[in-house]
Amino acid sequence: MAELTHFNDQNRAKMVDVTQKDVTFRIAKATGQIIMQPATLERIHAGTMKKGDVLAVAQVAGIMAAKKTSDLIPMCHLIPLTGVDIHFSDDDKTTITAVTTVKTKHVTGVEIEALTACQIALLTIYDMCKAIDRGMIISNIHLVEKDGGKSGHFEFNDEA
Amino acid sequence: MAELTHFNDQNRAKMVDVTQKDVTFRIAKATGQIIMQPATLERIHAGTMKKGDVLAVAQVAGIMAAKKTSDLIPMCHLIPLTGVDIHFSDDDKTTITAVTTVKTKHVTGVEIEALTACQIALLTIYDMCKAIDRGMIISNIHLVEKDGGKSGHFEFNDEA
Amino acid sequence: MAELTHFNDQNRAKMVDVTQKDVTFRIAKATGQIIMQPATLERIHAGTMKKGDVLAVAQVAGIMAAKKTSDLIPMCHLIPLTGVDIHFSDDDKTTITAVTTVKTKHVTGVEIEALTACQIALLTIYDMCKAIDRGMIISNIHLVEKDGGKSGHFEFNDEA
Amino acid sequence: MAELTHFNDQNRAKMVDVTQKDVTFRIAKATGQIIMQPATLERIHAGTMKKGDVLAVAQVAGIMAAKKTSDLIPMCHLIPLTGVDIHFSDDDKTTITAVTTVKTKHVTGVEIEALTACQIALLTIYDMCKAIDRGMIISNIHLVEKDGGKSGHFEFNDEA
Amino acid sequence: MAELTHFNDQNRAKMVDVTQKDVTFRIAKATGQIIMQPATLERIHAGTMKKGDVLAVAQVAGIMAAKKTSDLIPMCHLIPLTGVDIHFSDDDKTTITAVTTVKTKHVTGVEIEALTACQIALLTIYDMCKAIDRGMIISNIHLVEKDGGKSGHFEFNDEA
Amino acid sequence: MAELTHFNDQNRAKMVDVTQKDVTFRIAKATGQIIMQPATLERIHAGTMKKGDVLAVAQVAGIMAAKKTSDLIPMCHLIPLTGVDIHFSDDDKTTITAVTTVKTKHVTGVEIEALTACQIALLTIYDMCKAIDRGMIISNIHLVEKDGGKSGHFEFNDEA
Repeated sequence: MAELTHFNDQNRAKMVDVTQKDVTFRIAKATGQIIMQPATLERIHAGTMKKGDVLAVAQVAGIMAAKKTSDLIPMCHLIPLTGVDIHFSDDDKTTITAVTTVKTKHVTGVEIEALTACQIALLTIYDMCKAIDRGMIISNIHLVEKDGGKSGHFEFNDEA
Repeated sequence: MAELTHFNDQNRAKMVDVTQKDVTFRIAKATGQIIMQPATLERIHAGTMKKGDVLAVAQVAGIMAAKKTSDLIPMCHLIPLTGVDIHFSDDDKTTITAVTTVKTKHVTGVEIEALTACQIALLTIYDMCKAIDRGMIISNIHLVEKDGGKSGHFEFNDEA
Repeated sequence: MAELTHFNDQNRAKMVDVTQKDVTFRIAKATGQIIMQPATLERIHAGTMKKGDVLAVAQVAGIMAAKKTSDLIPMCHLIPLTGVDIHFSDDDKTTITAVTTVKTKHVTGVEIEALTACQIALLTIYDMCKAIDRGMIISNIHLVEKDGGKSGHFEFNDEA
Repeated sequence: MAELTHFNDQNRAKMVDVTQKDVTFRIAKATGQIIMQPATLERIHAGTMKKGDVLAVAQVAGIMAAKKTSDLIPMCHLIPLTGVDIHFSDDDKTTITAVTTVKTKHVTGVEIEALTACQIALLTIYDMCKAIDRGMIISNIHLVEKDGGKSGHFEFNDEA
Repeated sequence: MAELTHFNDQNRAKMVDVTQKDVTFRIAKATGQIIMQPATLERIHAGTMKKGDVLAVAQVAGIMAAKKTSDLIPMCHLIPLTGVDIHFSDDDKTTITAVTTVKTKHVTGVEIEALTACQIALLTIYDMCKAIDRGMIISNIHLVEKDGGKSGHFEFNDEA
Repeated sequence: MAELTHFNDQNRAKMVDVTQKDVTFRIAKATGQIIMQPATLERIHAGTMKKGDVLAVAQVAGIMAAKKTSDLIPMCHLIPLTGVDIHFSDDDKTTITAVTTVKTKHVTGVEIEALTACQIALLTIYDMCKAIDRGMIISNIHLVEKDGGKSGHFEFNDEA
C-alpha cells in the first residue's frame, strides 16, 4: 500500500522534508460551492449592485486565509505566495461557485492554499447571510488543477 | 426583502453590534464530509490502528481552527469558547464524516466556529493524504443544529 | 509627576492589572486621514462606483485589525469586541477621513482598538493605491471620544 | 488510574467543556531559569545599565506570548487575561530566573499562560545572546502556585 | 486614468501576481510622528533614563508588527524580511519622530512593512502613555524613500 | 567584551540585518525534558497504546509552534522551514525527552525554531496531564547541534 509521507518512524506526524526539492513555478486552482435559498442569492445580487457587497468581503477573507494556510493546516509548509485571486459565478438560482488561483515559486505546491482560500471565502458568504438563511450548504470543494513540481500536472476528473 | 445585518449605512461591512445582547449558553453542531478513493480510506484505517493517525492530526487542527475563527471570518466576533469536540465516522468505503460541537456562554452564537472546525479538520485529512489521492472532494458542510440566543433553536432540515 | 501605569517595580513593562475593575459598557471613536494626489482620489471614486472598491477592502482590513489589537500592542489586554464599524468621507480633492467606532462590555476600554482599526484601514488605502501614488501621507490620527470605565468620558479638544 | 480529561469517547483530544464552571478570580505564578557562561550574564548586566537591555525585550516577548497561549497549546481555552507581569533576578554568576504572574476572572485557570510567558521570555534571552553563547540551557520551568477555581490552591513542593 | 493594479476582471481585489518579478535587494524607510503634552514627553525622557523605557517597548512592537504586515494588509504579499530597525528622535518639546528601515531580498518591495512598523511603534507609545495624555495625535506618516525593484528609487518630496 | 548583535546605535533592539548572508542549507536539533510522577508517565503510556495519545497532540503543537517562532521571539527572522520533526523517548519512570529537528535553506539559522518546537511540545504534555499532576518540571532545554551558515557547526558539550 502506498505510504503516507507525513509520518515519521514513530508513526507520528512530521512536516515532510522538502529541503532538497527544486524551486519551481507552482500554480493551483481550486473550486467549491455554496447552495442557498433563491431569496438569499437574490439578496446577494441586490447587494452587489447597490447595497453591501457580500462577495467583496468573501474575496478579501479568502485571499487573507490563503496566507494563513500554514497556520491552520498542521503539516503545511509556510510558502511566500506570489499571487492569489478568486472568481465568483452563480447559476442565478441557488448556487455560488468560487474558483481560487494561487501561485508561487517555491519548493512545494500550493494546493492546500487554494483550497483554504476557497473554504474561507465560502464560509464568509455563509457568515454574512446566516441571519436570513442558516441552512446553506458548502459543497463540492476540490482541486481543479495544479502544475509545477516533481509530481507535475494534475487535473480533476469530473467523470471520476 | 430581509436585510443583511452586516452592512452599515454606507453599504459597507461592519461587525454587528451585539453589545446589548444577553450572555446565554450557546451550542452549535456542524458536519461535513470528505470523499476519497477506497484505498485512501483503507490507508487511513491502517494508520489509525498501527501507523500514523491522520484523524488525530485532523482533530487537533479542527479544534485549533475553531479558536481562530474571528481571525479568518472578517465580521465574526471573537468568542472565548468553553468547549470544542470533533467526532469522525466513515462508511467503510469512500467517505469520512466529521461532526463538530462548539460551546460558549456569550452574547453571540458559535455556528461559524463549528463550521470552521469542520472545514479545517477535513482539509487536514486532504493535506495528510494528498500524496496518494489528489482528487478528494470536501462536501456537504452545513450546520446540524444550534441553540441559545434570541433566534433560538435551529435544526437542519434534510428534506430541504 | 504622574506615573505611567504600565511599568513594574523593576521599571519594566507589564500588562496593567485590571482584574478588579468593573465590567461596563465601553465605546471609543477614533479618526485619521490619508492625503493623496487629486488623481488618486478620483481613481478611488471611480472604483467605488464601477470598478474595484478600495474602501471596501480598507473597511474589512480595519475591522479585522481591531480584533488583532492585543496581538500588536504589547501591553494591551485582549478584549472580546461587541461591535466595530468604520465610515469614510472625503473632501473631494485630496483627503479621505476614516472614523472608527468600537464597542465592548469589558473591564477596560477600547481606545487602542479604535485607533488600530483607523491606522490599518488608512494603510490599506495606501497599499491599494501605491502603484499610482507613493507620496500619500497618513495624518491626524487621534481619539475622537471614549466613554465608559472609571476615567469616564473623554472628548478630543480641537482647540488644543 | 486517574483519567486524563482532554480525551473524548473516540480517544481523541478535545477542548474540555468548562461551560458550567464558575467565573472566579484566577492567578498563576510560574518560574524558570536560563543558565549561561558568566561572560554572557556580565554582558546582559552591562546592557541593562547602558547598552541594549536584553531583559526589556524578553519581558515584552513573555507578556505577548501569554496572550497567544491558546494559539500555541492545542487544547487550551482562550482566556481574556486581566494582568501579566514578569520579574527577573540572577545569581550574579550564571543563572537568570524569571517569575511570571498571570491573572484573570474566568471559568478556567491560567497556569499554562504563566508557563508560556516564562518559556518565551527565557527563549528570547537565548535568542538575543546566542551570537556569544550557544550552549545556554533553559531549565527548571514549573508552576510556583495557582489559586482560584474548583481545584483550589496549589503550591509547588520543592522537596518533591 | 492610471489603473489600480489590485483589482481583477470582476473588479474585486486580488493579490497582484509577482511570480515573474526578479528577486532583488529592497529597502524602504518610513517615518511618522506622535505629538503630545510637554509633560508626557518629559515623562518618557525620565523613563528612558531611570524608569520604564516606553520607547524600548515601542521598538519591539514596531519590529514585530513589520513581520505581521501581510496578516494585516489584505493584498500584501508575505515577505521574509532580512532586517528591521527603528530610530526615535524628539524635539524636546512635544513631538517624537520614528524612522523605520526594512530590508529584504525578494520579488516585491517592503514599503508597507516600513509603514506598519512606524504606525504600530507610535501607537504603542500612545498606549503606554494614554493614562496621562489621551489627546496625543499620530501624524505625518509617510514613506521616506525606497529602493529596489522595477519601479526603482523613490524619495519623498517634502515640497509637495 | 563581545558585542550583542541585536542592538542598534540607540541601544535598542533591532532585527539583525542578514540581507547579504548566503542562502545555505541549515539544520538545528534541540532537546528538552519533562519530569513527572511515575503514575503520570504510566498514564501517557496507556494512552499511547489504546486511549488518547498525549504525544500525538504534543507533536502537532510543537511542529505548529516552530512555524510561529518569528511571531513569538521579537528579533527572529521569519524563515520558511523546509522540514520539522519531533521524536519522544522516555526512561520508563519519570521523564519524557523530546528531540526536535528543523531544516531550511535560508540566510539565517533555525536554532530558535528547534527550541520553540521543543518548549511548546513539552508544555502541551504538561497541559494535557495537568489535571492529574500539576508539579511537572520542564527542564534541560538546549540546542543539541546546528549546521550551516558562517558560524558553521556547533555541538552541545555535555561536559560543560
